[in-house]
Amino acid sequence: MWGIVLHRNSEVGLARQIFLSLKDRILSGQIPQGEALPSTREMAVGLAVSRNTVNDAYAMLWSEGFTVNRRGAPTRVAAGVQLQPVKQSESPREREKKQSPILWDFRTGQPDLSLFPWQTWNEMLRGAAASLTAQQYAYSGPKGYEPLCAEIAHWLLRSRSMAIDPSDIFITSGATQAFRLLTDILPQDNRAFALENPSHPGIYNMVTDRGISLLWLPVDEQGADVAALHGQSVAAVYVTPSHQFPLGGILPASRRAALIRLAQDNDFYILEDDYDSEFRYGGAPISPLYAMDSAHVVYVGTFSKTLFPALRLGFAVVPRALQAQWKHCRNYMDVQNPVLEQAALTAFLKTRKMDRHIQRMRRAYGEKRAVLLGTLSEAFGDSVRPWGDDSGLHIALQFSSLRFTERFTQACQAKGIQIATLAEYCHTPNEHQDILLIGYGHLSAGQIRQGILALKRVIFCMESELLYLQQETK
Amino acid sequence: MWGIVLHRNSEVGLARQIFLSLKDRILSGQIPQGEALPSTREMAVGLAVSRNTVNDAYAMLWSEGFTVNRRGAPTRVAAGVQLQPVKQSESPREREKKQSPILWDFRTGQPDLSLFPWQTWNEMLRGAAASLTAQQYAYSGPKGYEPLCAEIAHWLLRSRSMAIDPSDIFITSGATQAFRLLTDILPQDNRAFALENPSHPGIYNMVTDRGISLLWLPVDEQGADVAALHGQSVAAVYVTPSHQFPLGGILPASRRAALIRLAQDNDFYILEDDYDSEFRYGGAPISPLYAMDSAHVVYVGTFSKTLFPALRLGFAVVPRALQAQWKHCRNYMDVQNPVLEQAALTAFLKTRKMDRHIQRMRRAYGEKRAVLLGTLSEAFGDSVRPWGDDSGLHIALQFSSLRFTERFTQACQAKGIQIATLAEYCHTPNEHQDILLIGYGHLSAGQIRQGILALKRVIFCMESELLYLQQETK
Repeated sequence: MWGIVLHRNSEVGLARQIFLSLKDRILSGQIPQGEALPSTREMAVGLAVSRNTVNDAYAMLWSEGFTVNRRGAPTRVAAGVQLQPVKQSESPREREKKQSPILWDFRTGQPDLSLFPWQTWNEMLRGAAASLTAQQYAYSGPKGYEPLCAEIAHWLLRSRSMAIDPSDIFITSGATQAFRLLTDILPQDNRAFALENPSHPGIYNMVTDRGISLLWLPVDEQGADVAALHGQSVAAVYVTPSHQFPLGGILPASRRAALIRLAQDNDFYILEDDYDSEFRYGGAPISPLYAMDSAHVVYVGTFSKTLFPALRLGFAVVPRALQAQWKHCRNYMDVQNPVLEQAALTAFLKTRKMDRHIQRMRRAYGEKRAVLLGTLSEAFGDSVRPWGDDSGLHIALQFSSLRFTERFTQACQAKGIQIATLAEYCHTPNEHQDILLIGYGHLSAGQIRQGILALKRVIFCMESELLYLQQETK
Repeated sequence: MWGIVLHRNSEVGLARQIFLSLKDRILSGQIPQGEALPSTREMAVGLAVSRNTVNDAYAMLWSEGFTVNRRGAPTRVAAGVQLQPVKQSESPREREKKQSPILWDFRTGQPDLSLFPWQTWNEMLRGAAASLTAQQYAYSGPKGYEPLCAEIAHWLLRSRSMAIDPSDIFITSGATQAFRLLTDILPQDNRAFALENPSHPGIYNMVTDRGISLLWLPVDEQGADVAALHGQSVAAVYVTPSHQFPLGGILPASRRAALIRLAQDNDFYILEDDYDSEFRYGGAPISPLYAMDSAHVVYVGTFSKTLFPALRLGFAVVPRALQAQWKHCRNYMDVQNPVLEQAALTAFLKTRKMDRHIQRMRRAYGEKRAVLLGTLSEAFGDSVRPWGDDSGLHIALQFSSLRFTERFTQACQAKGIQIATLAEYCHTPNEHQDILLIGYGHLSAGQIRQGILALKRVIFCMESELLYLQQETK
């Protein structure tokens, strides 16, 4: 306890040894000012000495002014007795101060956490904590909390027309873990993974970290061009068919059918990332690829956008042929998710709080999107064109005759604008340099307006540098 | 919503289309008996039709007896209208019934969850939920909740004399994830990982899944024999120096010093798994290997045994040289832990509830251990010898002149006894066949006594089959 080592045969008495050890640690700052010492009973048990011995040691500390006692409160280390303060690591807050402050943060994929029904969620957590038995806090294996799998199946049916057997649903720590597991599980035999270009850097890093080779699928306004797969031998194809990330297209039926046929003929898996199809503001609901062939598609969903990222809950609908390997790999990755959040989410789904929350957020995000599009039109007129469908928490915005460089994003940062160019998501050089990505889900209408106007000022000041089509065609 | 697809140009009216879709799903059992339908408002919004249309559809369902209405309650699916019940996956409870019931479960590594202060923990959770801001539920990165890292540093100092900078502490989803990350991070260049033999199957599976070659360190009563490392080129050495799993030895100072020197000379990392050193019933506290060289040792701790497994919280003290890679790999494995449990554990440590809980459990486990040792002595007299130190939640029990076979564990199972032989943890054949592993942490004194007496009966009945030394020396 407290790093005190007692020498029973020493000439120095036990009480004095305790006193000296504690004094050293107080002087060095290892036990900081204001820290409570253990009760004499605890300390006596911890060191296997009598309580009187500890009482004597504490009395010595007190009499030399190292501690303060207050009636009914634990003995605490006195102020100002420390000689060499322990090196404190820089706090995150201090680190933040050094960077220039972000006034308008247009990062993609950030839900509006201020609109989440925290009180309701906390009630779900309390209910879950009250109903779980002690035994349910033991290891329960890599599949996930079964009542949650059943509720997700119901929810997929009522929200996406998917009829899924709960035994095929595996809970994960977010979609990230599902894709990470798939890079371990899928048979490779030196076959490549095909990814969309542009795509999220997460999947790119996972695949290349494993040493798996890559095949790029070009992306146009309708999503991935699956024709690029012809004649190629791949182990898996990662796609975002409901809302291409980041360009926003919806994969049309013809490409869907072609992709499924290719998977069947050439025996590869399609990894379907459905990261935000809940937030669609018009048009018919989009049916997942999974519905076309449940043996060749792994469907991955997440609650990071609909609830909140630090929940760390997602799921995968896993083809039977992969389930044994999935369990093995999850078991030796981190075993399982914590049970409490799973039980709370079960109740959130069962009581339809989820459905109501999504409906409410769809309305809120739709309003923000309208503000964004209105402000963009006001600021840039016809010189900009938003890509993709009326959906999600971000847009890809194409500027006619501008080219966004690294110097541009730095200039934005200096003005407090955090924004990404599409080029940062492209894996071949000099592509789509005229497109910016604007995440707006987490911003207020006022922030969106002011941020776009600030963006306009940066573009206006740099325009001669950013213009390129004219120069090149001269 | 509910998988209903409406055809606006159809001759069939919208209300009738809704009615037919719902009827189909009710008949097929996809919407089960008792399930609530969405409110007419929700359904109207979800399908983009007027509320009157939904009212009409619901009225048709009700008039044909598919639903029941009760004042003030949602419309629910009536009983007995289902034609083909959806295939329900077998519930875990049903699967359990088919196996013979386990009366005495001597599995290792199971804490006694009935003694955990659930009420206090739930208060910590409530406090954490009340104090976390919405922004803290966004992504916060792979390092972990900083206040928790700071509290773990304090706790390591007062419980293990370790002076650690919180910036070197990384939160993980249990110890499993820490080791899984290390198998990804550590430089290999075709160099082997050295593991103890016997050891936990978890680390063995992680290493072999990555295709990393193995070097076995023999284990005796003092833990791993590190002399086996001489002349070998390894990337990492996994050890349990405070309490060898499963044989129970404590690595002596001479072997510790030799191991550290080898790591320094040959530039490999030591992975120190400190999985249960909190539960030590006598003798001086054991100083971790980490204290001898913080640049070559990764120290891994877990709260699965001290709190509960489904918490999924552990940590690693990571040498500076590995921290950037650690962050990268965690970021693309599952990003981070949920924040709520981290905040609750911070309070549990800060208020010293942790210290008191461990003290209480040490006493409780010590009493169970005394019952176990007493019953063993009563049942088997001098013919058995417990290995290892007075510590942990299990013992390794050596029987003179018996050899435990697979038929033995099957015979135990038939009598309701779940028990492991040491041979199951050995990675070379015909070793330590005379040792059983007995986990007792989660059992009551009565269960321990009855279980050991039941074990005695199985051994007594099979003795002629198990005896081997006599036969072989004849």
